[in-house]
Amino acid sequence: MGQYGEFTKADYYYIKRALSLARKGVGYVNPNPPVGAVIVKGGEIIGSGYHRAYGQYHAERIAIMDAKSNGADLRGATMYVTLEPCDHYGKTPPCTDAIIEAGISKVIIATRDPNPVSGDGITKLRNAGIDVQIGLMEEEAKDIMRFFIKSVTKKIPYVTLKYAATLDGKIADLEGNSKWITNNMKNIVHKLRHEHMAILVGANTILKDNPYLNTRVSGNTKYLNPIKVVLDREGRILKLKNLHDLNIFKTVDNHGFGKVILFTSSKDKFCLKVSEDKLQIIHSEEITPEFVLETLHNLKINSLLVEGGSEIFSQFLDFADEIYAFYALKVLGKGLYVFSCISNSLEDSGKQFKDFEISKLNVSQDKKEFMVVIKRCSLEL
Amino acid sequence: MGQYGEFTKADYYYIKRALSLARKGVGYVNPNPPVGAVIVKGGEIIGSGYHRAYGQYHAERIAIMDAKSNGADLRGATMYVTLEPCDHYGKTPPCTDAIIEAGISKVIIATRDPNPVSGDGITKLRNAGIDVQIGLMEEEAKDIMRFFIKSVTKKIPYVTLKYAATLDGKIADLEGNSKWITNNMKNIVHKLRHEHMAILVGANTILKDNPYLNTRVSGNTKYLNPIKVVLDREGRILKLKNLHDLNIFKTVDNHGFGKVILFTSSKDKFCLKVSEDKLQIIHSEEITPEFVLETLHNLKINSLLVEGGSEIFSQFLDFADEIYAFYALKVLGKGLYVFSCISNSLEDSGKQFKDFEISKLNVSQDKKEFMVVIKRCSLEL
Repeated sequence: MGQYGEFTKADYYYIKRALSLARKGVGYVNPNPPVGAVIVKGGEIIGSGYHRAYGQYHAERIAIMDAKSNGADLRGATMYVTLEPCDHYGKTPPCTDAIIEAGISKVIIATRDPNPVSGDGITKLRNAGIDVQIGLMEEEAKDIMRFFIKSVTKKIPYVTLKYAATLDGKIADLEGNSKWITNNMKNIVHKLRHEHMAILVGANTILKDNPYLNTRVSGNTKYLNPIKVVLDREGRILKLKNLHDLNIFKTVDNHGFGKVILFTSSKDKFCLKVSEDKLQIIHSEEITPEFVLETLHNLKINSLLVEGGSEIFSQFLDFADEIYAFYALKVLGKGLYVFSCISNSLEDSGKQFKDFEISKLNVSQDKKEFMVVIKRCSLEL
Repeated sequence: MGQYGEFTKADYYYIKRALSLARKGVGYVNPNPPVGAVIVKGGEIIGSGYHRAYGQYHAERIAIMDAKSNGADLRGATMYVTLEPCDHYGKTPPCTDAIIEAGISKVIIATRDPNPVSGDGITKLRNAGIDVQIGLMEEEAKDIMRFFIKSVTKKIPYVTLKYAATLDGKIADLEGNSKWITNNMKNIVHKLRHEHMAILVGANTILKDNPYLNTRVSGNTKYLNPIKVVLDREGRILKLKNLHDLNIFKTVDNHGFGKVILFTSSKDKFCLKVSEDKLQIIHSEEITPEFVLETLHNLKINSLLVEGGSEIFSQFLDFADEIYAFYALKVLGKGLYVFSCISNSLEDSGKQFKDFEISKLNVSQDKKEFMVVIKRCSLEL
């Protein structure tokens, strides 16, 4: 039920279609929100579309173009759109203008745009005589665009922690071996990497595993490679003679997707054989999670997938909006555990999760691993 | 599909009824298997029953008595029964005799009885001219009577581990505080205690928490109190001046349900103020898991719920047939972890679970806790 009025069964049907379309853009549109739109007239869908990539047309304009290319007369039609249409010139002209020009008479919106930059699309449409209703499946719409909402309202990226552990919470054995504790849900990990704009790992992870940190998928889906953020406080990675041979640099493409942003406190001078479009170095005396998140926000990064190791998980737990925890039917006993730098009393052990709940629980196909997704209950981020 | 022939849709319907009846006896019939029976004639159920308690009539006899009390003529009827009918005089006379006398002409059995003591019921029935079919929903039937099968075939009890941990696998904080890490699925724990004949805990658990280790349920279900097995190698519990005040003795009833069996290596002489029907002491120089399990088997205990702590979990992991793991949305970081005495390499970390798979994954109602049940895939125990 919308909080702004009553909607019909047909309204729900059409906004669900728009939400499905919006989901197709997840990962491709960052730092924009994924948005979908459906145009209905006389009980039929005459046009639909979604925002496909950053810098390209918004969902509303694509749906209108789709309807026109079908030869439809848009006058008197209703548009269902998952986010309030923008009323400003960004990379593309205002969607409000396109809606008004097309003669659409009613717009049903899932959720308002929290970004002040977007302008007041609702007032603009109403002033043009269009009937505007708001709040249909608002929670679902907010969930789809949670990276965007967090980033716009809190000025730091949405943070997801992802770890793979044994039943007893270990992420590596005593020798530091960690790959692959879980192995059967890799496709979910690669989807997560695609959806987030950046991945964060500590220097230890790079030095121990020399990972690629890219997206690999079998099948037709083309996943994007995220930006790799590396915390290298003491410059242990920068010191490497064969720095340019690290696998993280092998997965930077020509469009800059997959580039490395390295935070360090080291004041040493390094002779780097890596070009600036592959490696950006950020110096700071203190590298706190707050500093990292604010810096990434200023670099227009709206979402960060924290992949470890243990020290990094411990530092970023308080900043997490969501956790993907994978567990395998394994027991290490002695070993490195996931939040090794935290020391809570039993009383305080749940404080990080006061506003969180389990949103998903899945078993792998071979029934040897399971995944639990923990998420903020409220999207008032 | 049965491995001994083809069954009809109606056969599946009736054996499912018999399996449901069998389940009602779980926890009440130990060390006997839970068994259900349904008698069908002319497409109608004319009698049904299940084994209700150790020493009382078997399911077959109860179903026959039920049919007779309904005034039914049993001649030419078909009996569906979840376990091969016994052919020996135990606490009650052979079920085979009752079936033959009643004139039942066909018996469909879910699974054979692995207990040599029960005699060859199938041959006895066939020799009397009864058509016997075997193997209908055999896996389900074996699962319901897995305590009995393990005990009869392996001469040790079926072992279930049950632990409650934080996301990072801790079962207590640095001060040893552990109750209640999980809190919202207590009804499942009490059902487990009821189903198993005995619970096992270490001396630390008794000394730290002074638990009752009984079954508590709100509602109408009457749960039985399990036998409490305590490992007290050094006699730290026996040394207690106020031993008789421990809560474990407060939950022993007049029928001996809930009594304490204590294993110790201590050779000290203790002046005990607890009567023998409440406390049985077993002395042994070495108290290995093997010794404990064999001793319990000889005491006719077919199932053991291992409740901790960490040292006990580590020792009994290799003997587990099933694990109930409860996790809470909590992080302790430093603390006592569930298998603290184990030290596996990553390579060996899955060896205990080669034949296991996840059989259940549940979220608590408040979405703050989840439960994973891990079980042997094969019932060839």
